[in-house]
Amino acid sequence: MATTALTLSAAPLWAQEAEETQVIGISIPAATHGWAGGMNYFAQAAVERLEEVYPQLDFVLATASDPSKQVSDIEDMVATRGIDALVVLPFESEPLTGPVKAVADQGVWITVVDRGLSEPGIEDLYVAGDNPGFGRVSGEYMVSALPEGGKVVALRGIPTTIDNERVAGFEEAIAGSGIEVLGMEHGNWNRDDAFTVMQDFLSKHSQIDAVWASDDDMAVGVLAAIEAAGRSDVKFVLGGAGMKEMIARTRDSDPMVPANVTYPPSMIASAIEITALGLVSDAPVAGRFIIGSELVTPENAEQYYFPDSPF
Amino acid sequence: MATTALTLSAAPLWAQEAEETQVIGISIPAATHGWAGGMNYFAQAAVERLEEVYPQLDFVLATASDPSKQVSDIEDMVATRGIDALVVLPFESEPLTGPVKAVADQGVWITVVDRGLSEPGIEDLYVAGDNPGFGRVSGEYMVSALPEGGKVVALRGIPTTIDNERVAGFEEAIAGSGIEVLGMEHGNWNRDDAFTVMQDFLSKHSQIDAVWASDDDMAVGVLAAIEAAGRSDVKFVLGGAGMKEMIARTRDSDPMVPANVTYPPSMIASAIEITALGLVSDAPVAGRFIIGSELVTPENAEQYYFPDSPF
Repeated sequence: MATTALTLSAAPLWAQEAEETQVIGISIPAATHGWAGGMNYFAQAAVERLEEVYPQLDFVLATASDPSKQVSDIEDMVATRGIDALVVLPFESEPLTGPVKAVADQGVWITVVDRGLSEPGIEDLYVAGDNPGFGRVSGEYMVSALPEGGKVVALRGIPTTIDNERVAGFEEAIAGSGIEVLGMEHGNWNRDDAFTVMQDFLSKHSQIDAVWASDDDMAVGVLAAIEAAGRSDVKFVLGGAGMKEMIARTRDSDPMVPANVTYPPSMIASAIEITALGLVSDAPVAGRFIIGSELVTPENAEQYYFPDSPF
Repeated sequence: MATTALTLSAAPLWAQEAEETQVIGISIPAATHGWAGGMNYFAQAAVERLEEVYPQLDFVLATASDPSKQVSDIEDMVATRGIDALVVLPFESEPLTGPVKAVADQGVWITVVDRGLSEPGIEDLYVAGDNPGFGRVSGEYMVSALPEGGKVVALRGIPTTIDNERVAGFEEAIAGSGIEVLGMEHGNWNRDDAFTVMQDFLSKHSQIDAVWASDDDMAVGVLAAIEAAGRSDVKFVLGGAGMKEMIARTRDSDPMVPANVTYPPSMIASAIEITALGLVSDAPVAGRFIIGSELVTPENAEQYYFPDSPF
């Protein structure tokens, strides 16, 4: 008996690893549409791709409609599936911090996506979008699209750090250009709020050259308000986040939607793929990966259009 | 004829892509030993792994002993191999910036590793080590290893931004602890310089509890100086970067080398792997990936020891 045990444990480490299946748990907020719907789609697609490429990896994907369901999903993954790694996009930071820390303390690799936990240092890998970059790329586009300068209005999201970082990046990028910001108001990343805010802007200002809607949902509301008002002075609306319908309009050279700036829900796929990489290769993947915001134009829009995604 | 052409181009995009081989060029400084030697080893290992996993990917790996050879390597990859992506660790920033920009302008994906180019925004993906984190993790270890406080000396690298960031992270981490830094001098990441600096420290100070050598080459020089002086007051030396021989001493519980802090040459593998991911999956991989510096202790040293690597 003792000899057998010794022989087994003397097998080369790579051989032991090759035989062993490793399990990655993925816990994300549920959604059937919008940005979160896209995130769900890309998480599922990444799992399917990885299952095909790496037979030695198994995946558990759970979606939750509230933080307490998400906590119990995660506890379940540890208890019944013995996960080796957890990829989590927290529903909310506060209620998930303690439970995720408890999982980390058991030696499970932790990848946190997009929304950070309330305590630093719990996760091994953090994957998130680039909010200052989102604003900067948007501002740079405005400057290039209005080379003679012009009068613009801007819509902000829900008052948050994310929104502040985006706006700061935008303002820095247009500083010193001929662009004059007539007004900036919170449309709360909401279509209806954005419609109302834009109605106000249109009634206050007789000449608006362009709108930084800063989000595709808000852009939809803004475009509706412009159409309802019958105004032809507004040359274009710049949204953001890469909603499918808006990417299609850019691809099809709609002059009102000439560009987009990404904040891709597919960052969940990057997080899952890189977590998998940490299990199948010697490449170090602990750290902080900030996914860049990229400018989408008619020339490259096709590569940002995913026909099967809901977003 | 026209009908055939139409039929061909109407094939689904994924099918066209699946048939097409994509080529990744890798251009790195040559080296047979030290950190750069490890980097060469891990680049080669990543290529071998990826060639096995993804038959649709081809790789060209070139190593250069000076910047002009590196420039001509890269130009050659574009001209004769038509690379789709370039992973480059610049020998020097200045002479590589123009040539890499010219490659980017042709639509080739650019991944820059460790040493940035002189102009921002050229690369699609930037992969680098975490210098402030390297210092912070080192400082946190010092605090935990000297819970009653103590007198330490520290060695710095070549005067650079990298060195400043590391030292600032270290100083922040030990602030408010009982650790007193008796002296801090530049050992220039050099074994012999570190030996001389440490000789000076030992002659000036009769009681030194520990040394932050901040680099494994310098740690080797420091340990030699301590031994030559026959001093038994120094409890341990903390190096960094994860040199094989030092990782082995930590693994084997050498009391003088109780820990290490990573700044892994295998980050080149992360860069190559993630660049490949951008070609084979829908996961967005543009952005900025800062590879974390991790604490190596006897408990986890085995996973940081690579028997076939020269470093």
